This record gives sequence, structure tokens and C-alpha cells, in this order.
Amino acid sequence: MNMKMREEGDRGIRAIKFEDDVLRLLDQRLLPEREHWLTIEHLDAAVAAIRDLAVRGAPAIGIAAAYAAVLAARDRKGDFEAWSADLRRLEHARPTAVNLSWAVARMRRSAERSGGLDPDRLLAQARAIHAEDIAANRAMARAGAAVLEARSGVLTHCNTGALATGGIGTALGVIVEAWRQRRVARVYAAEARPWLQGSRLTARELAQLGIPFRVIVTGAAASLMAAGEVDWVITGADRIAANGDVANKIGTCTLAVLARHYGVRMMVVAASSSVDSSLACGAEIVIEERAPDEIWRAAGIETVPVGFDALNPVFDLTPGRLIDCIVTERGAHFPPFDFAGGGVRESP
Amino acid sequence: MNMKMREEGDRGIRAIKFEDDVLRLLDQRLLPEREHWLTIEHLDAAVAAIRDLAVRGAPAIGIAAAYAAVLAARDRKGDFEAWSADLRRLEHARPTAVNLSWAVARMRRSAERSGGLDPDRLLAQARAIHAEDIAANRAMARAGAAVLEARSGVLTHCNTGALATGGIGTALGVIVEAWRQRRVARVYAAEARPWLQGSRLTARELAQLGIPFRVIVTGAAASLMAAGEVDWVITGADRIAANGDVANKIGTCTLAVLARHYGVRMMVVAASSSVDSSLACGAEIVIEERAPDEIWRAAGIETVPVGFDALNPVFDLTPGRLIDCIVTERGAHFPPFDFAGGGVRESP
Repeated sequence: MNMKMREEGDRGIRAIKFEDDVLRLLDQRLLPEREHWLTIEHLDAAVAAIRDLAVRGAPAIGIAAAYAAVLAARDRKGDFEAWSADLRRLEHARPTAVNLSWAVARMRRSAERSGGLDPDRLLAQARAIHAEDIAANRAMARAGAAVLEARSGVLTHCNTGALATGGIGTALGVIVEAWRQRRVARVYAAEARPWLQGSRLTARELAQLGIPFRVIVTGAAASLMAAGEVDWVITGADRIAANGDVANKIGTCTLAVLARHYGVRMMVVAASSSVDSSLACGAEIVIEERAPDEIWRAAGIETVPVGFDALNPVFDLTPGRLIDCIVTERGAHFPPFDFAGGGVRESP
Repeated sequence: MNMKMREEGDRGIRAIKFEDDVLRLLDQRLLPEREHWLTIEHLDAAVAAIRDLAVRGAPAIGIAAAYAAVLAARDRKGDFEAWSADLRRLEHARPTAVNLSWAVARMRRSAERSGGLDPDRLLAQARAIHAEDIAANRAMARAGAAVLEARSGVLTHCNTGALATGGIGTALGVIVEAWRQRRVARVYAAEARPWLQGSRLTARELAQLGIPFRVIVTGAAASLMAAGEVDWVITGADRIAANGDVANKIGTCTLAVLARHYGVRMMVVAASSSVDSSLACGAEIVIEERAPDEIWRAAGIETVPVGFDALNPVFDLTPGRLIDCIVTERGAHFPPFDFAGGGVRESP
């Protein structure tokens, strides 16, 4: 089973590639209608791809940034100061996901340790970050699936699969593995406005894997839970504080509150690279707010009338007290969460 | 104030007109991009307009159906049986809003009382239904506004204004009146997927009225409430059972659960024509489920890939126990709800 899983993961959907000395990104803004690969040769294009959502998903952003740092090192020809400024630009492309600054810091440390900008050495470091994410995805899939009871109904949010990570995904990886183990009987995917990563990307991945699913609008989550269709809400995370507070795609906290109301359990799946142990709680996490127009444009309304305004935070903060289980590559963590100790607690 | 309010209401947005012997409907599917009036001369076109959402909002559907019954009576030239079959087709155009069957039943009783199909008499009845809705809107606006404290933050859902009713609206009528009385300081509008009536229609009405607002995706409601921005969630209703259970636009129950969690209050505003006192509770209300493709098409994705599936209920049921106040034209009702008694209870 593990070997089969590994093969499938290795043969599966990949949205980030570094080949022929360039970074290639499957442009996620055009899916599912069109499969178009961007070829990224320099830092500016990488920063734009991250900022403009051609690549998205916290782990995928981290991996893309690591490869972008390699491209920048090649262009800077040994100028460490200029490269450091490049890394700061990369880091600031998006604020909420900690994986971005985590990957950039790792690339910086690698250069510092080797005493200069060696593109080959940096590429090896970027490939290691990518490979570790693939391995973490596999470990999380197994650990998360083991927590689910047989024939559970699950509701996931946004996209947390192969398109959002280096490997088979975080939350979606758990769902796919649990589906194979018959621990999941029903999969619902919340569409995730404004950018519809659920109905565009998660739908595409599940359809490709042959796993039946139904998309819902976020507002339908309450009636779905009231009807007893959902046993677990399973999401990813963009940043996790030491107490288990989770910053994730806008709508996650809404689903967590509903889950608590209806006696549904809430699982968050993220590699330990998403844990920011410098934060005691989530209050300090910067929640990215994007342009109001996105609310209309991402729904196909290109011309937004004068006087129309929106509040468009694209992440929210879910208190750790609303979360029943956090799965990292180290295993399943249960409340009270203690990532600093590194220990995996047994299910209570 | 009342006189000014009345004048503004009378001069305001109207989406349903019966003039020159035809029914004219402002096609709500094309707003805000395009203002296009449909001219409806016969029953078939009216049924299609209701089914395909050119006219929507429970009270507006009821009024449009009443005028459609006049058009059908003219075509049937006294054939009461054929006209009765027409009315059944009208009634079945959409299942959830009780206003549709309520208006049709009133037209049928009017014909029965007069012993035949007199188009002029039926037109007078349809105009009475329309006029009563305008008056009910005004009464609800006053009664609902009186419940709000000074400078409240309100979150509304879907569209419940002039585009959804005959007059100034239900929930949105309360908000507009309360804004004028300075009881409302902040207006948030949930976009209401799939059809975006909030970000398309409510936004258009508020912009035309010069009232500042911000649209949010439904998933942002939790963080908005957590930030203390919302004192009241205010929505309309498509059908209200005797115990206060409310069927309304999908997402309403999600907002009601969040409101209870965050200590925000929940107000439902609907004319007594939306109260279905034949139902002890909401469990028997038929919740309309529409085609899965709407989830994608209403977001601008015309070609839905093979294998993509969605669950698309367009209403949900909010238990009366999650509702703090129901406003009808008779006044503000507080729990335990007792519409059968007809009495308006004082605020507890």
C-alpha cells in the first residue's frame, strides 16, 4: 500500500518544476479551463507569480520561492547584498503564509554557511525543500487518515492538494489516502470565494483521481452539517501559532464555528514548516487584505460599478480551541497543542 | 420624515411594473452591468422569468405571479379550468417561497368570488397585492429600525430591497430606514453565492441610495463578527413556519449560527404573506435544489469539466431558536414566536 501510494504520488499532478535551469509553474489562475505553464527565468517574474496567484498554497509558495532564490543567485553573480535584497522582495510578495519566509530564510542560511552564492549548492537546497515537502505530505496523509473513523463524511475548503504543495497535498492528501482506506465515504469541497480554489482546483484534482465529490458554496455548510453529512472538516493552514491558532483561507473560521455548533470535528493538516513557534498565539499574524475589486472580478464581473466597495481579507484566524486535531509530518496533535515540545500526543 | 420617506420610496427603484396591459420586469440576471426590461405578455414568459431568476425575491415573485395571472386570464377568455391549470404552472415555477402560492391563491379566490374571469377585476386584485406589499415594506422598515440601537453595525445577506419586493424592501428596507435614523453606522452585505444577489443587487441599491457599504464573501462573516463589526444580522425570509423556523437564501443558517456564537443578534424581516401558518415547524418546507452547473456558471465559468459535481440547494432552514427578532408589517415579534395569535410581543 505504501509503495503503491508512493508511486501514485510520484506520478501524480505536479504544479512546480525546475528543469533546464528554469522554474516552471502551472498557472493556477487559468484552471480548470486551460493548462498553461509559465516559464520563470528571473526574480521579478517569480515575485509577480506569487503576488498574482499564479502559484498559491502555502507549501507551493515556499517551494517556488526557494527556486526563485536560485534564479536570483544566478543573476546576481556573487553579489550577496543584492541577492539579500532580492530575498526581501520575495518574502514580501505575500504576508500571511509562513512557508514563504521560512523557505527564504533557509536559502539565506544555506548561502551563509557556504560563504557565498553558489547556484548549484542553492539549487540542491531548493530541491531538498521540495523533496522534504513531498515526504511530509506522505507522512501527513498516513497520520491524518488514521484519525478518521470508517466511512466518514468530510468537508474540505480551498485547495490543499498537489496544486498547493510539492507532493500529494496536506488536507487533500489526508482525504485521498483516507478514501483509499475506505475511511472516507463522502467528500464535499467548499468552493472558497473569492478565487474558487475549491470548485476550480480541488474539483480538478479529485476528478483526475476518480474520487467522487460535490462542491458547495460556503453558505451551504450549515445545512450540510445539520443534515449529518459531515463528520470532519479538514483544512490546511498558512501559519500556525504555538497555541494552535491557525491562519488559513478566509472561511476556515466560519467552518470551524459551524463544526463546533453541530458536533462536527475540525482537523488542520500542515507541515511543521507552517508552524510559527515565534508566535504564542495567532493575534500577531498579518492577515492579507486584497483589492475590493477581486470580489467581483473573480466571479466574472469585470467592470465594477462606481461606488461598489468590498472588504476582502483572504485569510482568517481560527482559534486553537475550535480545532480538534492538527496533523503535521510528525503525527497527529490533539489539544492542548504543544508544538514546541515537538511531541505527538495520543488521541485523548 | 415619514412624508419624505414615502416620497423617496415612491420615486425609488421599481423592478416590477404593469403598464400598457403588459408586465414589465427589470431583468435581475443582467444587473449591475446592464439595465434591461423584459416585456411579458403571456403566461409562459412569466413562468420562465420566475424559474430562470429574471425576477427573484419572495415578495417580488408573488407580485409578478399576480400580474401573470391577469395576463393568463386575458388569454383564456373566460375558460376558468384552463386558467386554473395556468395558476398551477405558475405555483410550481419555484417551490420554496410561500409568497408565490399565497399570491396565486388570492387571485384564484378573487376570480371565484366574482364568479368568472374578469381581467379588470383581477388586475385590481394584483395591484392591491402590489400596493399592500409597498405599505408592508414601509411598516416593516419603521418597526425593524426601532429595534436597533444607535450606530449599529449590520450584516445583510442576498438582496431584500426594492429589487426583491414591491416597495423599499424587507431587511434592506429596515437597514435603509435605520441608516436615515442614524441607528446604523456600518453596512456589510454578504455576496450570496451562487447568484451573487448581495454583491450585484444589494450593492447596486445601496450605491444608488448613497449609503456606504462593504461586500464580503460569506466565509468572511466569522472574522467580521470576531472583530466586533456586526451587532445585527438582518435577512429576509422565503417562508416562515409557525414556530419561527425560517427558510431563506442559502447561507442564512450559516450566518445565524455564527451570530449566536459571537453574541450577535439575528433579525428576520418579512411581510406576513411570508408566514405559512399551516406549518408547525420548518421541517416540511421544500428546499429548492438547482442544477449543479449553476455553481460554476454563476461565477463566470461557462464550461464545466466532465466529472465536476456540486450540491446546489439555494435555500436553507434556520431554526427559530437562533432568531432574536422577526419583523412583519404588524411589528417586531420576539421569542417565543406566536404568529397564529397575531400579537406583537414587546421586546423582552
